Amino acid sequence: MTDVCMVIGAGAGIGGHVAKRFAREGYHAALCRRSDQDGLVRMVAEIEASGGSASGHLLNAIEDGTIEEAIEKIEAEAGPITTLVYNLGAQVGNRPLADTHHKMFEMGWRLGTYGLFRAAKVLMPLMEARGGGTFLVTSATAAVRGNAGQHSHAAAMAGRRMLCQTLNAEFAPKNIHVAHILIDSAVNAPDTLGKMLGAERFAKLQEARANGKDEIMEPDAIADTYFHVAHQHRSAWTFELDMRAFTDTAWWNHPVDI
Amino acid sequence: MTDVCMVIGAGAGIGGHVAKRFAREGYHAALCRRSDQDGLVRMVAEIEASGGSASGHLLNAIEDGTIEEAIEKIEAEAGPITTLVYNLGAQVGNRPLADTHHKMFEMGWRLGTYGLFRAAKVLMPLMEARGGGTFLVTSATAAVRGNAGQHSHAAAMAGRRMLCQTLNAEFAPKNIHVAHILIDSAVNAPDTLGKMLGAERFAKLQEARANGKDEIMEPDAIADTYFHVAHQHRSAWTFELDMRAFTDTAWWNHPVDI
Amino acid sequence: MTDVCMVIGAGAGIGGHVAKRFAREGYHAALCRRSDQDGLVRMVAEIEASGGSASGHLLNAIEDGTIEEAIEKIEAEAGPITTLVYNLGAQVGNRPLADTHHKMFEMGWRLGTYGLFRAAKVLMPLMEARGGGTFLVTSATAAVRGNAGQHSHAAAMAGRRMLCQTLNAEFAPKNIHVAHILIDSAVNAPDTLGKMLGAERFAKLQEARANGKDEIMEPDAIADTYFHVAHQHRSAWTFELDMRAFTDTAWWNHPVDI
Amino acid sequence: MTDVCMVIGAGAGIGGHVAKRFAREGYHAALCRRSDQDGLVRMVAEIEASGGSASGHLLNAIEDGTIEEAIEKIEAEAGPITTLVYNLGAQVGNRPLADTHHKMFEMGWRLGTYGLFRAAKVLMPLMEARGGGTFLVTSATAAVRGNAGQHSHAAAMAGRRMLCQTLNAEFAPKNIHVAHILIDSAVNAPDTLGKMLGAERFAKLQEARANGKDEIMEPDAIADTYFHVAHQHRSAWTFELDMRAFTDTAWWNHPVDI
Repeated sequence: MTDVCMVIGAGAGIGGHVAKRFAREGYHAALCRRSDQDGLVRMVAEIEASGGSASGHLLNAIEDGTIEEAIEKIEAEAGPITTLVYNLGAQVGNRPLADTHHKMFEMGWRLGTYGLFRAAKVLMPLMEARGGGTFLVTSATAAVRGNAGQHSHAAAMAGRRMLCQTLNAEFAPKNIHVAHILIDSAVNAPDTLGKMLGAERFAKLQEARANGKDEIMEPDAIADTYFHVAHQHRSAWTFELDMRAFTDTAWWNHPVDI
Repeated sequence: MTDVCMVIGAGAGIGGHVAKRFAREGYHAALCRRSDQDGLVRMVAEIEASGGSASGHLLNAIEDGTIEEAIEKIEAEAGPITTLVYNLGAQVGNRPLADTHHKMFEMGWRLGTYGLFRAAKVLMPLMEARGGGTFLVTSATAAVRGNAGQHSHAAAMAGRRMLCQTLNAEFAPKNIHVAHILIDSAVNAPDTLGKMLGAERFAKLQEARANGKDEIMEPDAIADTYFHVAHQHRSAWTFELDMRAFTDTAWWNHPVDI
Repeated sequence: MTDVCMVIGAGAGIGGHVAKRFAREGYHAALCRRSDQDGLVRMVAEIEASGGSASGHLLNAIEDGTIEEAIEKIEAEAGPITTLVYNLGAQVGNRPLADTHHKMFEMGWRLGTYGLFRAAKVLMPLMEARGGGTFLVTSATAAVRGNAGQHSHAAAMAGRRMLCQTLNAEFAPKNIHVAHILIDSAVNAPDTLGKMLGAERFAKLQEARANGKDEIMEPDAIADTYFHVAHQHRSAWTFELDMRAFTDTAWWNHPVDI
Repeated sequence: MTDVCMVIGAGAGIGGHVAKRFAREGYHAALCRRSDQDGLVRMVAEIEASGGSASGHLLNAIEDGTIEEAIEKIEAEAGPITTLVYNLGAQVGNRPLADTHHKMFEMGWRLGTYGLFRAAKVLMPLMEARGGGTFLVTSATAAVRGNAGQHSHAAAMAGRRMLCQTLNAEFAPKNIHVAHILIDSAVNAPDTLGKMLGAERFAKLQEARANGKDEIMEPDAIADTYFHVAHQHRSAWTFELDMRAFTDTAWWNHPVDI
């Protein structure tokens, strides 16, 4: 049976490109996303047109039972999930405490932290029984630095990071590789970055990109590193790495002042 | 009107001693805890017997509305809360993923992260309107290091820490001091440590204590530092500090091996 | 015999104010600085005029043997050094790699890291033999974040921080309290900040200060916390804390962008 | 002209294997080490026997001028150094402060921190003039955690890490990729690990290895990741990553106790 790479959060950015990359290498890519059935069908078709194997699954990860059922269904239909890519964002935009409603804060946790816990509850025992597996977890700057306006996002992502550490502490010796991948700069994904930046700034970034400036993270370049990490020899596993565009300031670096 | 120090999580350990310390310095101490009405009454009586002012409030912090109502009630009855001590633990003991049930994981978040968010939602605007205030947040090693068996606790405490960072980023310039106090070693509190260690180990620690060994954190010593941090000049505020007994290994130090 | 607080780097900022604070509490303050004999004499006289005990020592810390001799001399003349305040800066200003000369880089290490090692080599055994002591080490943002232009400073301060961790690991159980105090914002010290900012910006800060804005760290406020940390009960020692003015952005917080 | 990968610290462990890996991909590998001319000749011969290009250089990195001359010589003879691998260790073994002599502490800095600065002083301008390059810097747990007995090593490695951050802040936007690679577990290298562990423990590890246990880091596996990082697309560069054997506890994880 084929190895399956399940991607939770398979949009036009990191998730979709990681799925394509794994499919290109012989995995069945199981793409899960919340909405846009047409987009999902197109991505599956694109992978199949290149000779790969893929399936698409609409999935509202915030609802109890959904991730769990998808894992069961994919395992039954496509084969053992050997790699899980947990790529759900939990960004609600910069907003002061007064505008961070209770439901938003909770939603951040449900997508950012709890969904990963739920996936691990189902999948870790399966991987352990099969002797190994890989969890690649996309994360964000907010996991290590709580900035103004990020109440929901930072709490959720920090919870995600620490959960990755506890999962790693329990499951690495059982041959399950957990990697926490800190994406520290904007990714060229129209459906998220486009919304965040607005049309004008996004267009400007695209123009820079067309000029070979590489100042916005290319999701297929990111996918190369995901694939590499997933295939490191187990005597030399990476738990955490950061990634950013070469011209971007690392999160810990202010513009120089005093 | 008297300044009020509200302590959420006022048991026999850090919370109770911080309450006493603030009461000794002229604050009204509003002690909140989940259970043990008798213990609460005794603590209030003890403070009053020393000439201090205090009130006791049973409060199941995990339930929506409870923290919010307590804040309202205390402000109405005792005066403006100028210092909040958020001292709720969220430890569920070391347990592998298989024994970390969904409700436990959620409870960790509700007590560890979400309760602080709820308190901030109500109290930050009041403090801001009054021109300042102080949030002292007790935290744990698990906020910065996810160890095996700590799935719920580490995710919850990391969320707490990052929430402190975002609150600090938004409210410090508004004269509200947020401090994240990382307690990195066992505290001499029979109702938590006693349970965790079991009777025998706890008795042993008490014996060492009686011999002046100071190898277990004394909650009144911790309370001194809480009081100091709460009264730092605003040109020199501490956001984060760690504390441990002098003989204890810091969380980042393994026993030396290779 | 009186307890002695030795301050290496006793200028008009943190060092001088910590010396005054300890002198006010009954310590003999041994003030050491590289130059300005007149300033040193004035500070000693000021302490004595307030009823305190102090001595002044010119000391070029970068030269081998100087710190060592000063410790010996102070111990012989004034009594056992129970608190060492290591307050030497190692800032050479923001300069690109091309302008960071080999000697500058080495000087950063000599003042930033090696001087503390040399002091510890002499003083730790004395403190250990006497059953305890305190090392208060002033540090800077550069110890935890390497910014552009900080090649010498960041390498030196990171070395200082890790040396504090290793000293703490070895000597805390021997009742010697090592504290790494991260000063994360500008201090109101004419002889360092004045030079760094230039006359105009410094004057502006002074004006804000005069208006009660507290946006620049007051060294006497910092000294309060140094004194507090030095007198924590040993069951509840702080190893690391950060400090900044309430309006200043913490080092890990960028101005919010995306 | 061929791209050159210069390895400072090319022994039988990480350095030698990274050299081989780059040579296999078409680079000229310039191997530098302090001693063992015969071993060096053998490694060069081995690379050449596999169809690769290599040269060997004895180099006492601690002496001023040596790294500088080697860079000049290699650039003149073999071509532009496009990748520098800085792989010098600075471990002096676990020793208490009393046994950490001044010269040892200084040697730690000279190998751990200053040598990298010296290499950067010469090579960064060359790379900048050529439009880009790569610095791969091997680092150790001690860079982020100062353990007992590690006075020299931790101070040196922390300096190395922060220097990497400052170099990255200045040179990443100039298309020079600096990566700080934290090796957090023992590497299968007879000339370092063998010495550290002693014959018996090393033999035991070798036995486990022969049984396919992978509990000791294989340097060729590490080299795969070095090569990957060196060839990441510049829109998605990694600055820092950790690596360890799957059965090894991460540096931040104690054995679970309380």
